Amino acid sequence: MPLTEAPQGGDIKSHKLHEDRLFPSDPVQRDIARELYAEVSGLPIISPHGHTDPSWFAKNENFGNPTELFLAPDHYIYRMLYSQGFDLADLGVPDRNGVPEHDPLEAWKLFASNYHLFRGTPSRMWLDHVFAEVFGIDKRLSADTAEEYYEVIDAALKSDDFKPRALMERFNIELIATTEGSTDSLEHHEAILASGWKGGRVISAYRPDAVVDPEHEQFKSAMITFGEMMGQDVFSWKGYLEAHRLRRQDFINIGTTSSDHGHITARTADLSDVEAEDLFKKIVTGDFTAEDAELFRAQMLTEMARMSIDDGLVLQIHPGACRNHNGKLFASHGRDKGADVPSQTEYVQALKPLLNKFGNDKRLSIIVFTLDETSYSRELAPLAGHYPAMKLGPAWWFHDSPEGMRRFREMTTETAGFYNTVGFNDDTRAFLSIPARHDVARRVDCSFLARLVAEHRMQIDEAHELAVDLSYNLAKAAYKL
Amino acid sequence: MPLTEAPQGGDIKSHKLHEDRLFPSDPVQRDIARELYAEVSGLPIISPHGHTDPSWFAKNENFGNPTELFLAPDHYIYRMLYSQGFDLADLGVPDRNGVPEHDPLEAWKLFASNYHLFRGTPSRMWLDHVFAEVFGIDKRLSADTAEEYYEVIDAALKSDDFKPRALMERFNIELIATTEGSTDSLEHHEAILASGWKGGRVISAYRPDAVVDPEHEQFKSAMITFGEMMGQDVFSWKGYLEAHRLRRQDFINIGTTSSDHGHITARTADLSDVEAEDLFKKIVTGDFTAEDAELFRAQMLTEMARMSIDDGLVLQIHPGACRNHNGKLFASHGRDKGADVPSQTEYVQALKPLLNKFGNDKRLSIIVFTLDETSYSRELAPLAGHYPAMKLGPAWWFHDSPEGMRRFREMTTETAGFYNTVGFNDDTRAFLSIPARHDVARRVDCSFLARLVAEHRMQIDEAHELAVDLSYNLAKAAYKL
Amino acid sequence: MPLTEAPQGGDIKSHKLHEDRLFPSDPVQRDIARELYAEVSGLPIISPHGHTDPSWFAKNENFGNPTELFLAPDHYIYRMLYSQGFDLADLGVPDRNGVPEHDPLEAWKLFASNYHLFRGTPSRMWLDHVFAEVFGIDKRLSADTAEEYYEVIDAALKSDDFKPRALMERFNIELIATTEGSTDSLEHHEAILASGWKGGRVISAYRPDAVVDPEHEQFKSAMITFGEMMGQDVFSWKGYLEAHRLRRQDFINIGTTSSDHGHITARTADLSDVEAEDLFKKIVTGDFTAEDAELFRAQMLTEMARMSIDDGLVLQIHPGACRNHNGKLFASHGRDKGADVPSQTEYVQALKPLLNKFGNDKRLSIIVFTLDETSYSRELAPLAGHYPAMKLGPAWWFHDSPEGMRRFREMTTETAGFYNTVGFNDDTRAFLSIPARHDVARRVDCSFLARLVAEHRMQIDEAHELAVDLSYNLAKAAYKL
Repeated sequence: MPLTEAPQGGDIKSHKLHEDRLFPSDPVQRDIARELYAEVSGLPIISPHGHTDPSWFAKNENFGNPTELFLAPDHYIYRMLYSQGFDLADLGVPDRNGVPEHDPLEAWKLFASNYHLFRGTPSRMWLDHVFAEVFGIDKRLSADTAEEYYEVIDAALKSDDFKPRALMERFNIELIATTEGSTDSLEHHEAILASGWKGGRVISAYRPDAVVDPEHEQFKSAMITFGEMMGQDVFSWKGYLEAHRLRRQDFINIGTTSSDHGHITARTADLSDVEAEDLFKKIVTGDFTAEDAELFRAQMLTEMARMSIDDGLVLQIHPGACRNHNGKLFASHGRDKGADVPSQTEYVQALKPLLNKFGNDKRLSIIVFTLDETSYSRELAPLAGHYPAMKLGPAWWFHDSPEGMRRFREMTTETAGFYNTVGFNDDTRAFLSIPARHDVARRVDCSFLARLVAEHRMQIDEAHELAVDLSYNLAKAAYKL
Repeated sequence: MPLTEAPQGGDIKSHKLHEDRLFPSDPVQRDIARELYAEVSGLPIISPHGHTDPSWFAKNENFGNPTELFLAPDHYIYRMLYSQGFDLADLGVPDRNGVPEHDPLEAWKLFASNYHLFRGTPSRMWLDHVFAEVFGIDKRLSADTAEEYYEVIDAALKSDDFKPRALMERFNIELIATTEGSTDSLEHHEAILASGWKGGRVISAYRPDAVVDPEHEQFKSAMITFGEMMGQDVFSWKGYLEAHRLRRQDFINIGTTSSDHGHITARTADLSDVEAEDLFKKIVTGDFTAEDAELFRAQMLTEMARMSIDDGLVLQIHPGACRNHNGKLFASHGRDKGADVPSQTEYVQALKPLLNKFGNDKRLSIIVFTLDETSYSRELAPLAGHYPAMKLGPAWWFHDSPEGMRRFREMTTETAGFYNTVGFNDDTRAFLSIPARHDVARRVDCSFLARLVAEHRMQIDEAHELAVDLSYNLAKAAYKL
Repeated sequence: MPLTEAPQGGDIKSHKLHEDRLFPSDPVQRDIARELYAEVSGLPIISPHGHTDPSWFAKNENFGNPTELFLAPDHYIYRMLYSQGFDLADLGVPDRNGVPEHDPLEAWKLFASNYHLFRGTPSRMWLDHVFAEVFGIDKRLSADTAEEYYEVIDAALKSDDFKPRALMERFNIELIATTEGSTDSLEHHEAILASGWKGGRVISAYRPDAVVDPEHEQFKSAMITFGEMMGQDVFSWKGYLEAHRLRRQDFINIGTTSSDHGHITARTADLSDVEAEDLFKKIVTGDFTAEDAELFRAQMLTEMARMSIDDGLVLQIHPGACRNHNGKLFASHGRDKGADVPSQTEYVQALKPLLNKFGNDKRLSIIVFTLDETSYSRELAPLAGHYPAMKLGPAWWFHDSPEGMRRFREMTTETAGFYNTVGFNDDTRAFLSIPARHDVARRVDCSFLARLVAEHRMQIDEAHELAVDLSYNLAKAAYKL
């Protein structure tokens, strides 16, 4: 039972997005922010990294009911409800046996009755944006309005206007990248290309974690599949690397411009050929230590960088999440259930082998992310502000929020500047929230620039140019789009 | 000799608390903050964790002179003066031989002449509040006003209106928790209950550090006393746990709702019964390593959580202080002399054994504090925003300050929300400063909410509800009061 | 090739420094900041720690061309350009073979065409200040104005008014400290003293790193020179310490008031005489481990502190830079080429041996700096707010910036107060930027104080006093000037 009761119903509150939301309240700064935002609010969306499902755009089928679309897959939402004592089953969150028996409307009501829990969170801001802008609802979500919300959204989702391709066009998404593993099929991407649809580009990112991380639960089976798919002896070092090279080319063929690597740490290595091959032998025999596994992941980042110099893929490193912290929940529900927690992450020594090997190579582009904000000013901005091959990814995951983005700019700009950053990543599987997320990022960046202008630290013409760069140009340049 | 001379006397400055103090100066935000604060400024004070002396309320005797009340016991004050080259003896701070010979008025003058050292510190804000609100003084403390201050305060402290119970009623303190060790007497609490006084509840918190930390200087003697008091063989694992269970019940009987644990790290453990018993044997024979001691403290947090599930006590963890950093001062003056320094504190791996064991249990409530602000957004908000059993304690000790509280809200709210936090703790032994401390917390929270409203990130009715929750309701709920 | 193109030329933008730059835009705060700044803007500059060349002031020769003066020696500038794919050789940055062949005007044009990269950085602010205030240029630097800039600056630099001593006087620099190593000549300082010039004091700081760090590339040769210079057997522990004592006296004789120590970590040690001598033997035979080297550096901080108690030199500790991170660049270009990166730095345990030995000694003054902002509120402010011998250095290097300075005040003031800090250090070799850097610091401090006043956390007369203390008095007091 949650400790806090939902607020008493009373009046049904109006729900309109304020046109100045997220801008500073100081009139000088607010007016500048307005002026900058006016120029970027209508720019197309570039979504160069995320986790939407390519089958949505290939099949273009209607989404499911509101609970299925908004609650069951969104760990931002159910982690908050879970933390307050609610059961995931009541929200329709799938466990290892599939979707639990639940009443979607009751799940929605539970969520609506506890909407106050999300006050001050980015989820609240994204959801309000979706409800108002995508569904045109003008009342606040609460116990009182839950049914009305459910009906309006449910009806809309059944219409043609709310099919994935229609939404992609309405959202003005110029390009979206999904993420697929080495052994995932690219059939949906191929189908999209074959369909001749011109409403937006859908590309992928090559994420080989399951065949790169020896401690991944699917490593063994994924390796076997990988070898079969690529026609290579992936249990030999040479064949393994060749399989990656070939698979990267498959991804490139459907438009992919980046790889992505979600390791526990940022560690990289620069082993000799002999050392690397010896290590690989230990890995594939299964007779390896935790340190061997770590070293193998480290070396593979350098191998991927080497391939990037040849084939041009941008290398993304997303380190620092302690995955599946809640053992019981992992046992019952599996991965990605809101129990991932950031850890302290070191970059200076960790990235040194890779950066010493390839960091001065202008052909290479490495984008580094962090969940450890202490590294912004201390490690990442100084590194990105020096190495030609390194750029700094935007505020990520738990820090993809107004305060998180503000801290990102405040702590990175003075050392790395704006032009060693890469624009915004929504990094989401919540397709309907993508415009909301980019809107928040644009508003926060315009507010940051407005402060610099209002404090006479930048001139207005420069802020105009930067607003467009941060909203659109930098992402296209950094991801080679 | 201090490096900086006190400012030249000149005019005697007026000293009035501004009604808008701590509110943003931006008129939009200030007006909202005023509106929110108006609603909470008069709410009763809930002080669920602190270090006042229960004998004050039991005996209701007058406090001593101004130096004895304000300077000698307040490490916030004498650490600052010590850092600038003043001697503790001159301030009447007790050493291992007791209270040193000193002239209380001269001590007060020394403090007053150096009041500029406290500019920008929370101590300055608390003291100004006490001087103005509790004693009605309208001049600033300085060398020039030192004697007048001393006389006014000294006279007031001798009056009935300034006895502990009268002040508790005047301060509108609904409930205050003291902190007692396992072997401390609860006689004063019993006396308060027996007295029939209805001016405010005084409860305790169970703090067993001296019989849980094998490296505590009093561990051996405390264990013997503990066994005698509880009539248990505390040198057997079973008897030791039973003694804790019984002692917790004694505390519960005088109204206690929480235990408190001040360990060096946040480490927890989940040993098997056999492992735990074997470890305990090493501990009680004295034949243990530093790692054994650390593991024992870690395991005891889990044991306490297990007992909490049975008896309902809320479990508070206060880790991360490197105690008695100054070896010479510790040798001459003992504990709590301003030489405690925070250290980097890891939570993700440290809390994992406990949270994996009991973190999903809705009956349990664990409140975690930190002195390491880097853990707010990186570790603690994600953990508290997921586990049903865990809540996040407020900005603590060195961070119990306007900037510290602001950072706390900015870095925790977006991931943990407001409802996984627990309101304010004053955590003080400075009884007269309690209203000042709660007032600062309420003003800072109202200012934070005002910014959210002014930036259209929250609606005003929600901010009103939250202002009351943060000032009053959350503390009562989290501490089961 | 840089990823981002320079902005299109178009109009030539005007370039005037705004009189309210860096002040808050909120009118209440801005007006207070203006009032405070008016009082300190004209104060003489105290530059107690930096890296200018004493020969400038001894010989008083004209500086070189604009590229030679502004680009080639300034790692803040060429690290940014390097990070965006430009070659150091094109900017005239010296490598191990000396100054590369380059066209200074073309280098300047390259810099000017990419001036947008510096938006939002302190370098941009410093440069704009120098261009406007020192050279009187009223157009923004860009591709279009590059040649005009070059000509104006080049002509000015050839005039008598832009010789070092004239600039020192024009800049109102009351005192400047250079930094010399143990084996560096002090001839320029002696020449300045002998010259009878009264335009400003030029002193040095004793930086013995090359003969204290056994892992320094010049350690062996520097030790031999050190012994010869001082006439001591520096390969005996006694002779080595005596050589330091004598050399410190040489520095004191030309006005030096501080030593400076740039170690990798903040570690200190308190070895017995026998242990120290045994360790020294290992060091001088070259038969030492990395841990021995670290321990020796640690012990030497304590030895230097012991000497400071005798001879009065203030001890500065500048730890935490991972030097020469880019191996290839170090091989080709040597030290100080923009590839130094901060690392996480621990202080609580690291400083304990030194502080336990001498931290309570009021005769000693230790100023500690950090590149790890997480230590401000967690470690350094609590330590400086307790130990009489320790003070906290200002925001340093990567954090010597408006946001960095603001964070410094926000995270240190509430625990350490203002009077355990030491004013501003420009720490620069860019002589012409010194007024700009002090101006930024004064503006940021006045803005911080203005916020405290506007939020009724400090009264205006106190802010006035503090503005002068932070701009001038504290530096003089802390460095015993």
